[in-house]
Amino acid sequence: MGADAQREVGRAPGYSFLPPSNFLGLAPEDSAYETSRALILPIPYDATTSYKGGAKDGPRAILEASAQIELYDVELDAEPALEWGVHTLPALAPDLRSAEATIESIAAAVIDLPCREKLLCVLGGEHSISVGVARGLYSHFGEFVTVQLDAHADLRDEYHETPYSHACAARRILDLGGEVIQFGIRSLDRTEADFLKENPAKVTAHLASVMHRDRSYLTALIEKIKGKQVFLTIDLDAFDPSVIPATGTPEPGGLLWYDVLEIVQTVARESTVIAFDVVELAPIPGLHAPDFTAAKLVYKVLTAVLGKE
Amino acid sequence: MGADAQREVGRAPGYSFLPPSNFLGLAPEDSAYETSRALILPIPYDATTSYKGGAKDGPRAILEASAQIELYDVELDAEPALEWGVHTLPALAPDLRSAEATIESIAAAVIDLPCREKLLCVLGGEHSISVGVARGLYSHFGEFVTVQLDAHADLRDEYHETPYSHACAARRILDLGGEVIQFGIRSLDRTEADFLKENPAKVTAHLASVMHRDRSYLTALIEKIKGKQVFLTIDLDAFDPSVIPATGTPEPGGLLWYDVLEIVQTVARESTVIAFDVVELAPIPGLHAPDFTAAKLVYKVLTAVLGKE
Amino acid sequence: MGADAQREVGRAPGYSFLPPSNFLGLAPEDSAYETSRALILPIPYDATTSYKGGAKDGPRAILEASAQIELYDVELDAEPALEWGVHTLPALAPDLRSAEATIESIAAAVIDLPCREKLLCVLGGEHSISVGVARGLYSHFGEFVTVQLDAHADLRDEYHETPYSHACAARRILDLGGEVIQFGIRSLDRTEADFLKENPAKVTAHLASVMHRDRSYLTALIEKIKGKQVFLTIDLDAFDPSVIPATGTPEPGGLLWYDVLEIVQTVARESTVIAFDVVELAPIPGLHAPDFTAAKLVYKVLTAVLGKE
Amino acid sequence: MGADAQREVGRAPGYSFLPPSNFLGLAPEDSAYETSRALILPIPYDATTSYKGGAKDGPRAILEASAQIELYDVELDAEPALEWGVHTLPALAPDLRSAEATIESIAAAVIDLPCREKLLCVLGGEHSISVGVARGLYSHFGEFVTVQLDAHADLRDEYHETPYSHACAARRILDLGGEVIQFGIRSLDRTEADFLKENPAKVTAHLASVMHRDRSYLTALIEKIKGKQVFLTIDLDAFDPSVIPATGTPEPGGLLWYDVLEIVQTVARESTVIAFDVVELAPIPGLHAPDFTAAKLVYKVLTAVLGKE
Amino acid sequence: MGADAQREVGRAPGYSFLPPSNFLGLAPEDSAYETSRALILPIPYDATTSYKGGAKDGPRAILEASAQIELYDVELDAEPALEWGVHTLPALAPDLRSAEATIESIAAAVIDLPCREKLLCVLGGEHSISVGVARGLYSHFGEFVTVQLDAHADLRDEYHETPYSHACAARRILDLGGEVIQFGIRSLDRTEADFLKENPAKVTAHLASVMHRDRSYLTALIEKIKGKQVFLTIDLDAFDPSVIPATGTPEPGGLLWYDVLEIVQTVARESTVIAFDVVELAPIPGLHAPDFTAAKLVYKVLTAVLGKE
Amino acid sequence: MGADAQREVGRAPGYSFLPPSNFLGLAPEDSAYETSRALILPIPYDATTSYKGGAKDGPRAILEASAQIELYDVELDAEPALEWGVHTLPALAPDLRSAEATIESIAAAVIDLPCREKLLCVLGGEHSISVGVARGLYSHFGEFVTVQLDAHADLRDEYHETPYSHACAARRILDLGGEVIQFGIRSLDRTEADFLKENPAKVTAHLASVMHRDRSYLTALIEKIKGKQVFLTIDLDAFDPSVIPATGTPEPGGLLWYDVLEIVQTVARESTVIAFDVVELAPIPGLHAPDFTAAKLVYKVLTAVLGKE
Ligand SMILES: [Mn+2]
Ligand SMILES: [Mn+2]
Ligand SMILES: [Mn+2]
Ligand SMILES: [Mn+2]
Ligand SMILES: [Mn+2]
Ligand SMILES: [Mn+2]
Ligand SMILES: [Mn+2]
Ligand SMILES: [Mn+2]
Ligand SMILES: [Mn+2]
Ligand SMILES: [Mn+2]
Ligand SMILES: [Mn+2]
Ligand SMILES: [Mn+2]
Repeated sequence: MGADAQREVGRAPGYSFLPPSNFLGLAPEDSAYETSRALILPIPYDATTSYKGGAKDGPRAILEASAQIELYDVELDAEPALEWGVHTLPALAPDLRSAEATIESIAAAVIDLPCREKLLCVLGGEHSISVGVARGLYSHFGEFVTVQLDAHADLRDEYHETPYSHACAARRILDLGGEVIQFGIRSLDRTEADFLKENPAKVTAHLASVMHRDRSYLTALIEKIKGKQVFLTIDLDAFDPSVIPATGTPEPGGLLWYDVLEIVQTVARESTVIAFDVVELAPIPGLHAPDFTAAKLVYKVLTAVLGKE
Repeated sequence: MGADAQREVGRAPGYSFLPPSNFLGLAPEDSAYETSRALILPIPYDATTSYKGGAKDGPRAILEASAQIELYDVELDAEPALEWGVHTLPALAPDLRSAEATIESIAAAVIDLPCREKLLCVLGGEHSISVGVARGLYSHFGEFVTVQLDAHADLRDEYHETPYSHACAARRILDLGGEVIQFGIRSLDRTEADFLKENPAKVTAHLASVMHRDRSYLTALIEKIKGKQVFLTIDLDAFDPSVIPATGTPEPGGLLWYDVLEIVQTVARESTVIAFDVVELAPIPGLHAPDFTAAKLVYKVLTAVLGKE
Repeated sequence: MGADAQREVGRAPGYSFLPPSNFLGLAPEDSAYETSRALILPIPYDATTSYKGGAKDGPRAILEASAQIELYDVELDAEPALEWGVHTLPALAPDLRSAEATIESIAAAVIDLPCREKLLCVLGGEHSISVGVARGLYSHFGEFVTVQLDAHADLRDEYHETPYSHACAARRILDLGGEVIQFGIRSLDRTEADFLKENPAKVTAHLASVMHRDRSYLTALIEKIKGKQVFLTIDLDAFDPSVIPATGTPEPGGLLWYDVLEIVQTVARESTVIAFDVVELAPIPGLHAPDFTAAKLVYKVLTAVLGKE
Repeated sequence: MGADAQREVGRAPGYSFLPPSNFLGLAPEDSAYETSRALILPIPYDATTSYKGGAKDGPRAILEASAQIELYDVELDAEPALEWGVHTLPALAPDLRSAEATIESIAAAVIDLPCREKLLCVLGGEHSISVGVARGLYSHFGEFVTVQLDAHADLRDEYHETPYSHACAARRILDLGGEVIQFGIRSLDRTEADFLKENPAKVTAHLASVMHRDRSYLTALIEKIKGKQVFLTIDLDAFDPSVIPATGTPEPGGLLWYDVLEIVQTVARESTVIAFDVVELAPIPGLHAPDFTAAKLVYKVLTAVLGKE
Repeated sequence: MGADAQREVGRAPGYSFLPPSNFLGLAPEDSAYETSRALILPIPYDATTSYKGGAKDGPRAILEASAQIELYDVELDAEPALEWGVHTLPALAPDLRSAEATIESIAAAVIDLPCREKLLCVLGGEHSISVGVARGLYSHFGEFVTVQLDAHADLRDEYHETPYSHACAARRILDLGGEVIQFGIRSLDRTEADFLKENPAKVTAHLASVMHRDRSYLTALIEKIKGKQVFLTIDLDAFDPSVIPATGTPEPGGLLWYDVLEIVQTVARESTVIAFDVVELAPIPGLHAPDFTAAKLVYKVLTAVLGKE
Repeated sequence: MGADAQREVGRAPGYSFLPPSNFLGLAPEDSAYETSRALILPIPYDATTSYKGGAKDGPRAILEASAQIELYDVELDAEPALEWGVHTLPALAPDLRSAEATIESIAAAVIDLPCREKLLCVLGGEHSISVGVARGLYSHFGEFVTVQLDAHADLRDEYHETPYSHACAARRILDLGGEVIQFGIRSLDRTEADFLKENPAKVTAHLASVMHRDRSYLTALIEKIKGKQVFLTIDLDAFDPSVIPATGTPEPGGLLWYDVLEIVQTVARESTVIAFDVVELAPIPGLHAPDFTAAKLVYKVLTAVLGKE
């Protein structure tokens, strides 16, 4: 059985109400803005995808599925969400004038949030939103390292005539100056391959096919991030399609659940995670397992980052 | 185009947020409990169905779809929701011990609501919830007439050994004393047919096949309800499956959109509607039209009832 | 509520079993071969379709949905299935060597059935199975009139190099000599149009677009069938796609539920129906309304034909 | 049976090939650019929708379904596509920089097409593409009347901060000067209602609820368009959701198949149609009936317009 | 290719019938009650789930899929089903009055079955049915060890006010006295974690995350069950969602096919399996792989248990 | 992000077109028949399956998904498709008269293709098409070894009275004389098991369960194929259903992505691949990951075979 609907609220003699639709379905006292240590920001945006869209339905699907997650964590022997509080912000409205306008509005919103006091967790939406998040974070924290889980390098300089496509996400983040470390990569175009060769100091791409047979990437990761500020951006297509089929461009040969958990927990342990996002969930009607997996991943990352302190 | 996401909230310079997930996606000032004239009570319950379940996902689907409805009503030349305010309560938790316990908890909740001050609109859930609603209403209003739209008479005295099945909803409501007028009926068992024959003063069933060729039923309706208190209970399977395929036991030959609207508006005009419910939506993944139709129906009934005053 | 699972069997103190998966979910005593007046023959065959297949899943979907149908019929004030008995035969295996071999095996099976003692009702499967049924019937009854409900005339002489395609069904039935009367037609190729013009004594096609504005077709029908032996073949794509979207080549502008019922009941009343089939249901996963509608249609035809006697 | 795959090409002794994936699956000789009287332009674009997207998959779904349509037309007793030739252009690439850029690129493409020699038929895509089409047409034809079938008036001046949203389509077309006549409208916001009241000479909106009970709208239409140049823009949500559930914001109470056909054929007969589009099909996986209906509508309009000459 | 429909029955000259819808689609002579060594009992019940329901459709989906399984087993070089006979009982009707009444009716039915002569295999349905099965088995066999595969411990004492929720299944089985050994656990609430710590002699939970890196659990298992009577209860959510997405609350990080097979075959080999169940399949329309996997698992367990003797 | 729609064609000032629907969405200059080194032949045929059909939609799904594949290959540091050219032939029409006629028409088509000059890659369709391909290849190349990836041995001599069922594919290929090496096998009937035992020189079946724990099969493979001509036939059900659920008879316990890649690349490296096919994709509406995986596999095999030269 699952943890379905276990968190009733507003109990009265003879009846009770189900929890509200915030992340984890928390009662008001566990999810108040003021007292919460974590902030969930849903950004239901997809506009630059041209194959299978639907990433704008990702945040809603993650929030709905999250109500089924057990709050108790067996490793911590605790219910971290209740100890820290998790507040879910209203969904940020996309700016439909242009991709660039949306990125800028995301940056403006992130700048207005108390990112040094609370852990920001963004739910996408297509990967281009991470550029807005990164810009906002830069104004709070200055330079940082980006750890990116993704099937694709997202290193194009321009795509379909816009530099703000999801295919350019990592490239735009690099504009801010910090290094990018990528895991799960298995799809590149030639310009991205060339960029990787020419910029070894800026970007490192761990190919999924190599990670499959050689587990030394964790050591390499630690070397790059040890003691640094890290923005963790998780494109769910980093996972193998057997784990997350619900994404715009699934690529076979990806990472499995415990692979991703290990990377994420290493990042949390060895660096200072300043914010993270989970993007590119494009829910498939009738198939709720990927939504649940994405929601659980969000809670696992939250727990790993906040649990460290 | 639709009214998608038109109601932004929390506008800041450079960005804005999307509306919350209440009925119609209203801003806090238009949906506060104190000032709202209407109350939406979601009851995500289905336990006695044994064919295609899923009615417990109905309330969530109606709420989600409702955010796309235009608030403006062309007949009233007004935005009724903004004038009256509509507050969405948290979902009532089913009591899984037994069907009877759930009915009783619904009645208890309804008794605690200010049904004489605000119009109660219940979103189901399977049809047995109407029994709980009716019991709660009785304690506020005393006897009333029930107008039921349904493909099925729901007049069994017991079904699968419980008198609280959705197949017994109208029979249990009759226990409270008032009359029941039914529209759209096209599926009966013999015990229900016998009960109908033996109790012409208690129940009138307008068969869909007769309604199809003879439109005199509105006159008959007015005669029964004129100036009375009415509880309106809409089982969405009253509609033809081409309009609402998303229900547990769809029956061909049902009512169309303008048929239902005409009945509902007649009831609103000729009687005093004390509360209403819309039940048995069992959403089909990937097919959002029925959810939208159900949500629009809820707003149309709300508008018809409150707009009269 | 529906009639779901109302027919329990094998009742023991403390528990009971659900009905078996025959047509209507009848108990053994109501569905024994010897005592039943009607025989249901499922033929799960589709091989000559080249667009959306799936008609071979039609019989199973109709049988499953049929368990939810109320046995009571309000017009007859009776439960006809219990009075007459309905036996469901095992599904006929398609002969995968060739289309012709399958047609021949169907004819052989029908010849072996007691078609003069019991009413045969065949569940398809693609429309070509009707050719096998017709050949079998011919050996029992000699010449008969065929009443065909269909969006397509099925009058090609050959299609994709085989004369046994579903596109040739009516043409092959004509080979047996009797007349064919068609309703709901709205898709023809030129060879079919020419055949219609050249053979007014053999085939009459009532176009759906004409039927929509001129209801005189019933009179024409009666003239053709009065007192004759009739084989009734219902291709479900005769219905408008809003009623039956679950078919291989849905065509807009089709017949509605009460239109079909009226034709079917006229045929039952005015002629001697020697057998009927309901074909081309290609179930859509997650959408059970069309399956239910098809199952109810089968019961309505059964009732109309047997109820006459 | 349907017309599935009936048009084989490249026949060799012993085998043959299926037709290519152009509109109607025509052989090269029936679909060459030079000799074709009609041009199909697919525009797979959706970026400003924020509820259920997917309109960018519309053109592909229409093309695929179109291969099943019979070329023969019973009213004309002809196979119009073979007589006139229909050429399918490659799909126009959306310009992902901004909505405005996409509109402009559509206008540029239309300007480059020989719209006075060949009938242009555009397949959407969201409704905002019609603005680009209209601009292109203006440069070929000067002022024209627009006949719009839609559930929504699309008369907002700005929506989500962009004047190029699908919610502004009719308003932007009005910027070009000609009149707009709308049918099937049943969803408006207050600014649109006000605009309608203030601009009776520019726009006429026929409400679906009025059209349902009063058929005089055809006379009103003829008066407005008689002998004029007309751009016909069909938002598929004008249809009732029972006919076309596969659209972003389905609205109950819409037009049926023969209602739309009658309007379209009246327009073709009484005016000079300079181009038309069919937009907002958002295909539902597994449900191919709406795709087929949309494809058949396109062929019906083509036939009505070209057949007149 | 698969084994589809390979078991024809009732062969006549010229045609044949497809097999009936029992487990494995066996012919009457291979599935007669008297001569069969195994009994399949379908229990289509789900009432206490409040997230994604649908487990009541599990038994039907397993039976349908089972007809495609090859009877031949390569390890045994035999067709075990033909040697032993497998009889499928009609589905047990749920008692909709309350969860407790259903559990009791299951126990009553199991008590009436010849569990010492034939191997009972139950198909769920939600996990709470295992409590009824266990009670029935206790009256046949006295105390036994329960081996539970599950993502969840199901050790709550009460859930939503009922002690008969699927979330309490293992706790209720423990009431009978025997020990419970769990595999695949990855979701617990605090009360369950506390119960586990306080009752090491009663329950052992092997966490999936530990099983993933340390394979010593088989040795631990053997120690606990060697030579004992075992009731094997398989909640399909023990599997990773990539293997079985079709379950109410899928949890990432679960067991794979060969992991489960190894545990099951170890149990069969080292202990005396007195009965087993496979529960919580909630079929996803259109996705038949999980149904097939569940059906094959049932046959694999049957083969392992009966093959030992 | 994915490579979606990256290959625009027909660029004009102000707008551009999307690529055509050939394999990989290549521009005309990269996909001309004359200059292309590889030929893609789609064969949309399924007629002998009797469980879940739909394999005839496989070729179209692979072609559509292929437009999203990055042309760049990181191992080769090249864009092989652009260097070699890949031409997509029109789809071969099935011959609906009989299974045998279809096989013969495939053989005739293959014989007419320049298989010694260009690499033939066939997209199925059910597995029986491989028999036609093999016959055609035999007339070009004489005897060859067949490497088959499959869950099923396909070694029946006859199935449902036809020797041309997909269940007989390998057996019919053996009729041509060469050896068959099978991988991933986990479903056999007794006649196939017997045939395997009696013909060790003709067929070798590597069972998936053995391959799971013992990786020596690659050595065995090399021994069999070293320097020989090989026809590679990939039934996608060789994959585990978590990778490819979209197939008619999915079997748990199958091969994973890197397992298949390793076998395929070994075959390409050690032998001379004369042609290959990828069959039995039966697309699931709404679930595009398997289509994408199949398309990527086709490109990987193409690259491995042509890249060797
Ligand atoms: Mn569980
Ligand atoms: Mn469980
Ligand atoms: Mn619209
Ligand atoms: Mn519009
Ligand atoms: Mn009902
Ligand atoms: Mn009801
Ligand atoms: Mn037909
Ligand atoms: Mn037809
Ligand atoms: Mn296979
Ligand atoms: Mn095969
Ligand atoms: Mn990506
Ligand atoms: Mn990305």
